[in-house]
Amino acid sequence: MRYSELFLPTVKEAPAEAEIASHKLMLRAGLIRKLASGVYDYLPLGLRVLRKVEAVVRAEMNAAGAQEVLLPGVQPSELWKESGRWEVYGPELLRFKDRHAREFCLGPTHEEVITDLVRREVKSYRQLPVNLYQIQTKFRDEIRPRFGVMRSREFIMKDGYSFHADEPDAERTYGRMYEAYKRIFGRLGLRFRAVEADTGPIGGSFSHEFMVLAQTGEDLIVTCTGCDYAANLEKAECPPPSDHKVEPPEELKRVATPGKRSVEEVCGFLGVAPARLVKTLLYVGPQGPLAVLVRGDHEVNEAKLRSYLKVEAVGLASAETIEKLTGAPVGFAGPVNLKVPIVADISLKGQQNFVAGANEADTHYVNVNFGRDVPVPQFVDLHVFTPVERCPRCSGPVEFIRGIEVGHVFKLGTKYSQAMKAVFLDAEGQERPMIMGCYGIGVSRIIAAAIEQNFDAEGIIWPAPMAPFDVVIVPTNYALPDIREAADRLHGELESAGLSVLLDDRDERAGVKFKDAELIGIPLRVTLGPKGLVKGEVELKARAGGEVIAVPLEEAAARVRQSVAEALSKSAS
Amino acid sequence: MRYSELFLPTVKEAPAEAEIASHKLMLRAGLIRKLASGVYDYLPLGLRVLRKVEAVVRAEMNAAGAQEVLLPGVQPSELWKESGRWEVYGPELLRFKDRHAREFCLGPTHEEVITDLVRREVKSYRQLPVNLYQIQTKFRDEIRPRFGVMRSREFIMKDGYSFHADEPDAERTYGRMYEAYKRIFGRLGLRFRAVEADTGPIGGSFSHEFMVLAQTGEDLIVTCTGCDYAANLEKAECPPPSDHKVEPPEELKRVATPGKRSVEEVCGFLGVAPARLVKTLLYVGPQGPLAVLVRGDHEVNEAKLRSYLKVEAVGLASAETIEKLTGAPVGFAGPVNLKVPIVADISLKGQQNFVAGANEADTHYVNVNFGRDVPVPQFVDLHVFTPVERCPRCSGPVEFIRGIEVGHVFKLGTKYSQAMKAVFLDAEGQERPMIMGCYGIGVSRIIAAAIEQNFDAEGIIWPAPMAPFDVVIVPTNYALPDIREAADRLHGELESAGLSVLLDDRDERAGVKFKDAELIGIPLRVTLGPKGLVKGEVELKARAGGEVIAVPLEEAAARVRQSVAEALSKSAS
Repeated sequence: MRYSELFLPTVKEAPAEAEIASHKLMLRAGLIRKLASGVYDYLPLGLRVLRKVEAVVRAEMNAAGAQEVLLPGVQPSELWKESGRWEVYGPELLRFKDRHAREFCLGPTHEEVITDLVRREVKSYRQLPVNLYQIQTKFRDEIRPRFGVMRSREFIMKDGYSFHADEPDAERTYGRMYEAYKRIFGRLGLRFRAVEADTGPIGGSFSHEFMVLAQTGEDLIVTCTGCDYAANLEKAECPPPSDHKVEPPEELKRVATPGKRSVEEVCGFLGVAPARLVKTLLYVGPQGPLAVLVRGDHEVNEAKLRSYLKVEAVGLASAETIEKLTGAPVGFAGPVNLKVPIVADISLKGQQNFVAGANEADTHYVNVNFGRDVPVPQFVDLHVFTPVERCPRCSGPVEFIRGIEVGHVFKLGTKYSQAMKAVFLDAEGQERPMIMGCYGIGVSRIIAAAIEQNFDAEGIIWPAPMAPFDVVIVPTNYALPDIREAADRLHGELESAGLSVLLDDRDERAGVKFKDAELIGIPLRVTLGPKGLVKGEVELKARAGGEVIAVPLEEAAARVRQSVAEALSKSAS
Repeated sequence: MRYSELFLPTVKEAPAEAEIASHKLMLRAGLIRKLASGVYDYLPLGLRVLRKVEAVVRAEMNAAGAQEVLLPGVQPSELWKESGRWEVYGPELLRFKDRHAREFCLGPTHEEVITDLVRREVKSYRQLPVNLYQIQTKFRDEIRPRFGVMRSREFIMKDGYSFHADEPDAERTYGRMYEAYKRIFGRLGLRFRAVEADTGPIGGSFSHEFMVLAQTGEDLIVTCTGCDYAANLEKAECPPPSDHKVEPPEELKRVATPGKRSVEEVCGFLGVAPARLVKTLLYVGPQGPLAVLVRGDHEVNEAKLRSYLKVEAVGLASAETIEKLTGAPVGFAGPVNLKVPIVADISLKGQQNFVAGANEADTHYVNVNFGRDVPVPQFVDLHVFTPVERCPRCSGPVEFIRGIEVGHVFKLGTKYSQAMKAVFLDAEGQERPMIMGCYGIGVSRIIAAAIEQNFDAEGIIWPAPMAPFDVVIVPTNYALPDIREAADRLHGELESAGLSVLLDDRDERAGVKFKDAELIGIPLRVTLGPKGLVKGEVELKARAGGEVIAVPLEEAAARVRQSVAEALSKSAS
């Protein structure tokens, strides 16, 4: 492909609204252009990358036994009403009426549509399992689209759904999808981790997220340095504390703590460590109010709280509610004599002689003890994992790393099949709901994530398997007949060998061409200049390495092919 | 691919709403399922065909120098307001508001979006031409979706747009796209014609439609048996009449024609041929009322009338308006003393002594003559081509054939670039609007059109290049070890050779398997039965031919490969 014929508008400066590297670089390198907030045009270079990602996803999904379908973007409201999500999805679900005033939405996901399809066609256990996927455009009306294609409104997903007669079969497919995902991100040349993820309130199911590792990632991941354990911070299990020394219970005392509300204020005033203070947080959920006790140096993990309560949403009580429930202003709630159900974090199991609010303004208790002063509550893992804790599997030390979620495998269970009556007759002739799994990959998001993981001050550094071209040929002056002829010949040879080649035939200074080549991040550059050509030499330079190697012109094609093959096989390993 | 693992639900009966063969067969053969009116799921078999079509389209577009992009489905209203189409597009344009109450639409086409993209990036003639295309999902809110994917609301199009500095360059690209389209439909194995098409009111431009020939086609095509001329009936030019004998003008007479309004009634009553009667049709357009004169045996071609008037829409006057304009009830309008501008069809040039209404109830004139009784009007080709007319190019006899429109190339001119200020600086530094072309292919529609052209009572007969599988292997009883082993080996051999193979490994009677194979239309079937296998033979049967050929088992793979290669090369030629 000749650069002069390619619609590839590169720019020096990204617009101010581009906050992160991938957004800036995708605009600057002419991969995308913004059409509207969170809605992007893919230009030829961006689409080449997208297609490379799609091809790897498709190949691995097919190899893992999933079958590709293509479902509509426009979905009738009836199905969403059946699943119950028409009411609960909120304004991210873009709804509209057609010319006959029938309600539709633009699909942000396809559980309803695929469940409807499968329930119409599958009647017997003999037809199960079914494992279908698509690579398709989704729309989510994000309140604040940002970061380019990282969090856009219109985006491309691979979404897959499987249907099973029993749990073991659902888990087998879950495992196959998990392994396929590992191969996909590996083949794309990305550094990633599969981590345990929050499943939400759907009891008995499990899920994993696939995270591309990048300093700029929005997600925090807890990884063990001693074993394989890795989990999204939301999901990371906290081990029960093992180091409580048994102390003799001291006398319960009320102490005046005038104006001391925060953990720092109370602990500073009383001269105790935050770990000795118990915070009492009042939540309101569908079952009414609940007091959650956690250590002063811990935070409540609301995802864990939702899972424990098996609810979709839970929120902190308002100041007004807190005052009504405790009889005291905010900041002095405590478990002693509290007329609200209590649940305590696992780290409080065995805790003795602790400090807590006294449900009275400017007052705390010291030497509170479970059993004596407070009925022994249920102890549940409800706090956010902290870096000082140890791996819940092997007790080894952990690290916190950052990642960008690009994939999610999820055992759905029967949530949709029960609501939508996707049932089958089992071998005994009994009607049962199908057991489902769902498996998503953010295809367009992978591009942004790959850039966040692979860039420098000059531009993008594509992993070889995702690069829009394998190699760029830069003749420093394409007008010179010798250079032109050598560049054209090399271009032809490499394309004949099946490589994708960009020939920078523009009438631009070499510096401009080099800058563009760095910006768009082609893994390998071949430079043809007059001085080298006199010696029969060209220069090879890897985008990632930086070292320039002089190579005889007649060996150039072979060397390039070797370099490209090496880069691709290194990524795949 | 094993049939037992394929999500391929075939059915005996199509739902009653499926009216045409392709709709019925696409449902019966498990290619698609309906999600909502005019909105379809593509199942694995349907998607395989769709991808084959896409691949051919993509390959030929790239080879012709077009570059692939991907534009959003969701489009902001601002651009449509700039082009003026927000107001005129009507209810087929599905409009909605996002969560911030901003207006958007689901793109039925992308002229606005692409023009916006190009005007932002292209400033100089040096950057032109630009030729971009996409294969993307469109939505048109048809009032009455029908015929399955033939006229659906959500569908897949290849839409391309080119931008040029001057007319000759625009025409060169038009020509290249025209040739690429011929290669695309040829490579897909379809019998088709490129025909001249109506361009609408955009003066000075031209267009061609690509029609897949099928008895059930909605479009009528006029083709010359003597030369290359072919045109959509809407567009077909009528030659001026050459056979008017000059007659002496007779005396103008008013005659009573009580209750005789229609051509048949008046001609029958007066004993004249319909060609001697002149119909006076009153139209109302943006410029006011207009009387159109055509022969009694001709119909007005409103597309031609719109082009002549250079308007988007024109309609027949209401009965009320006709009475007001003529002073007579409907059925007696005539050109004599009519106070409305008149245009006459070309076939009336030289017409003498004709019959026409007298603008009075139950009254006609006979022996009307232009010049004497009616001012000589402008003569314009305004009638619908009739089978008795001759080719407008070579005067040879013509045939009417039916077709299904699957592609359209269109020279747009500056309609969008002027409205949306897509301008560039030419070599003299003058600002000028870009000249545009647009080029569409109904990718999903091609599937339906191919079936309309290629089916029989048993099912689909895929052209080899579009077939979801190259060959189907039918073991009559897969449970028998010998048959199973031979079928598996042949399946493996053919897949290794790069063929796509469906192995019907189901526990079904041979008759059921044969019926399904015929229904889904795989071009070649290999049958392995116990009797043949004893003789070391298998049976080959082409879906299109029907003759069964016994082939030695050890030669089967080679014979299948040869047949598939022949079928593909025959289509491509």
